[in-house]
Amino acid sequence: MAKPKIEPRLPKGMRDTLPPQMIRREYVFSIVREVFHLYGFEPLQTPVLELRETLMGKYGEDAEKLIFNAQHPGGKEELALRYDLTVPLARVVAQYPNEIVLPFKRYQISPVWRAERPQKGRYREFYQCDADIAGAPNMSADAEIVGVVITTLRRLGFANFTVKLNNRKLLTAIGQYAGVDGEPLSQLYRSIDKYDKVGADGVRAELAERGLPADVSEKIMALILLEGSDEEKLDVLTRTMGHLPAAEAAITELRELLGYLDASGLPRQHYAFDFTMVRGLGYYTGPIFEAVAHDAGMGSIMGGGRYDELIGLFKGENIPTVGMAFGIERIIDLMETFNLYPPELGGTNTQVLVTVFSPETRRAASALAAELRAGGVRTELYVQDRKLGAQIGYADKKGIALVALMGEDEIASGMVKLKRLSDGHEVTVARGDAADVARGLLKR
Amino acid sequence: MAKPKIEPRLPKGMRDTLPPQMIRREYVFSIVREVFHLYGFEPLQTPVLELRETLMGKYGEDAEKLIFNAQHPGGKEELALRYDLTVPLARVVAQYPNEIVLPFKRYQISPVWRAERPQKGRYREFYQCDADIAGAPNMSADAEIVGVVITTLRRLGFANFTVKLNNRKLLTAIGQYAGVDGEPLSQLYRSIDKYDKVGADGVRAELAERGLPADVSEKIMALILLEGSDEEKLDVLTRTMGHLPAAEAAITELRELLGYLDASGLPRQHYAFDFTMVRGLGYYTGPIFEAVAHDAGMGSIMGGGRYDELIGLFKGENIPTVGMAFGIERIIDLMETFNLYPPELGGTNTQVLVTVFSPETRRAASALAAELRAGGVRTELYVQDRKLGAQIGYADKKGIALVALMGEDEIASGMVKLKRLSDGHEVTVARGDAADVARGLLKR
Repeated sequence: MAKPKIEPRLPKGMRDTLPPQMIRREYVFSIVREVFHLYGFEPLQTPVLELRETLMGKYGEDAEKLIFNAQHPGGKEELALRYDLTVPLARVVAQYPNEIVLPFKRYQISPVWRAERPQKGRYREFYQCDADIAGAPNMSADAEIVGVVITTLRRLGFANFTVKLNNRKLLTAIGQYAGVDGEPLSQLYRSIDKYDKVGADGVRAELAERGLPADVSEKIMALILLEGSDEEKLDVLTRTMGHLPAAEAAITELRELLGYLDASGLPRQHYAFDFTMVRGLGYYTGPIFEAVAHDAGMGSIMGGGRYDELIGLFKGENIPTVGMAFGIERIIDLMETFNLYPPELGGTNTQVLVTVFSPETRRAASALAAELRAGGVRTELYVQDRKLGAQIGYADKKGIALVALMGEDEIASGMVKLKRLSDGHEVTVARGDAADVARGLLKR
Repeated sequence: MAKPKIEPRLPKGMRDTLPPQMIRREYVFSIVREVFHLYGFEPLQTPVLELRETLMGKYGEDAEKLIFNAQHPGGKEELALRYDLTVPLARVVAQYPNEIVLPFKRYQISPVWRAERPQKGRYREFYQCDADIAGAPNMSADAEIVGVVITTLRRLGFANFTVKLNNRKLLTAIGQYAGVDGEPLSQLYRSIDKYDKVGADGVRAELAERGLPADVSEKIMALILLEGSDEEKLDVLTRTMGHLPAAEAAITELRELLGYLDASGLPRQHYAFDFTMVRGLGYYTGPIFEAVAHDAGMGSIMGGGRYDELIGLFKGENIPTVGMAFGIERIIDLMETFNLYPPELGGTNTQVLVTVFSPETRRAASALAAELRAGGVRTELYVQDRKLGAQIGYADKKGIALVALMGEDEIASGMVKLKRLSDGHEVTVARGDAADVARGLLKR
């Protein structure tokens, strides 16, 4: 083989998805889409390239260093590849006040780009899978978001997972209660956020390092690590901090949210308060959500919450909004780990390979392929000139279940032989029955 | 309303697709995907960002000025947004010799980027929809490509369209026959390519301008404007130029192609030779295809052909390959023009809006929404606190067919009222029957 003129390779952190893996991804997306539709979410599409000014100032400085810029020769606008699907949604809601009726329930399943250091399972182009409700002041919208998450994960086959619930207002209230506000408050958040990694003592040590007196630190730890049922936790919060307006608002919201979740009949084992859960993004204003799969050895597989002010940046008027994004790449990895794909999902969509005995029988093979397709059977016609054994080997390697064989004799008598590769079972049938018989053989 | 901090707007040439239009696009994509699967094509996904060197040198200089470059702060690689889906396919086939079994039949439905001057119906981000067979020396592969095009267009509802067939080798032979070769030959192609726009006399004038003697020009015109059936045309070509090796090869290929198309039972009115059809891209080496919709007032809606050398640039060894790309954005426009969408395809996927009488009945409404969804009915729960009339107006405006109404009385008696908005038809049913009854009301 000669040296190629151009080496075939990918940019750092990018990947190709070959058909067998694409079929698995599309299975996941089809379930997600089905549940989104079941909950009344509608598809939206925004362009990959946004104006840079649309993206900047929303994610925090560290994140914005990861944004890919784009330009064409002679182009005057500063462009960038989208970093998430939430900011484009906010832009869209502000931009089309006449076309978009509130409440606006949209989903989007699309790639986003972040120039993070690539590592195993982390890419610079990856899919997000978002569902949001804009124009939704009522907590029943937050419950709908939690509902769509739980229903999707269950339909994908996840058995052990929890959607953690918290409220940004409660975190603020805890800060006030402990006498912390302003910049120290966000430092407090950052310390609490590490709870999953460093444990209670780790957070205590961090708080001490930040100069928080031990008694203040203990007050905080007691609140975020409350034990008991979700209702009991709310009762304790009411007794201790209910007098603080932020706490009162947070407790009311969480109590309503619980009520709607309960009314929706969502299984109780799949949601629970977790007051140590913070969520990084600055734009959340109310309830926040995060899903974790148990025994998965990874971080969250869904994050979301209420962000009543983001659309206001583009609209000059706030629109109460709540939503979530699946960590769909992690979910796709876990489908493999937990063996959740249905067994009938193979490495190909194709059901029959029509083989070709010789150049002379090729036209008859074309006709047979057309007949099978007309009968709804997903059929490949073999297009190389190779021996029959090689053709059957190709079907086997690709995972095509059936091969159709038709030599001069079969052609003369209007028959075709269908062979199932898994067990070698063969039948010879009239051409007109081939599609029906093939479907029967595929079922077993 | 205050002035927004950031004006919500799009980069030049970009667009958003709001839900009603997305539902129509997805209908088109679902038909295309279904036919691709029926023909045994498998999904592939490549990243949006490619190395610049992967793209440059394949499309011609004029085209390459339209490529968007990309970069992240501190990034060392020269990146670009993909310009089509064919070059990424060629890279993939060369890059994964162990994973990819030939013949490799893949499709990809994805956006591409070109910084062309935006105009009505032309965007800088647009979808392409490709199906190709790599490792396919036999003309039956070309027939499969023409077959997938005709079947797709018919299933979308197109009645009047033609797939024009030609062969690059024939164009070369015509040049040789007329005594034109090298650079003047590509000028000749460019002039012939204008036939659709300027007619026969226009092409004659151009050829004269390029300094072609009148007798040579007439020889060419006589061949490219042959009349008669496709078979008769091949006979004339054989008699006049059959002694030229390029002509012989072209004629053999076209005759085989016709034979396979005929064997596949594809309707004859949907394909025909057109020797004035050239196709711009330099990489074609054999049969070329182009589809036009009659009375559409626009250019081609599909282009394709055989390109046996493109993969060789990345692999150092040529792989015979044939494929096509739908002009899917034009097809989507024509679906509207020719009114080809099924009447039941509305502006929403949602089937029922569960209304909410008052804050007190909201939990019951949540429960009802959950019940309808468990019964497979695509349901939106109204999440704002507005009067019933406004809620029904919202359903009507969105095109949701049914509303569910449940006041204190219905809740007490375990009943729910379902109302069909198109004709005002109402039924009151037990909650347990609501999903079944809703499905019945949706059918009529």
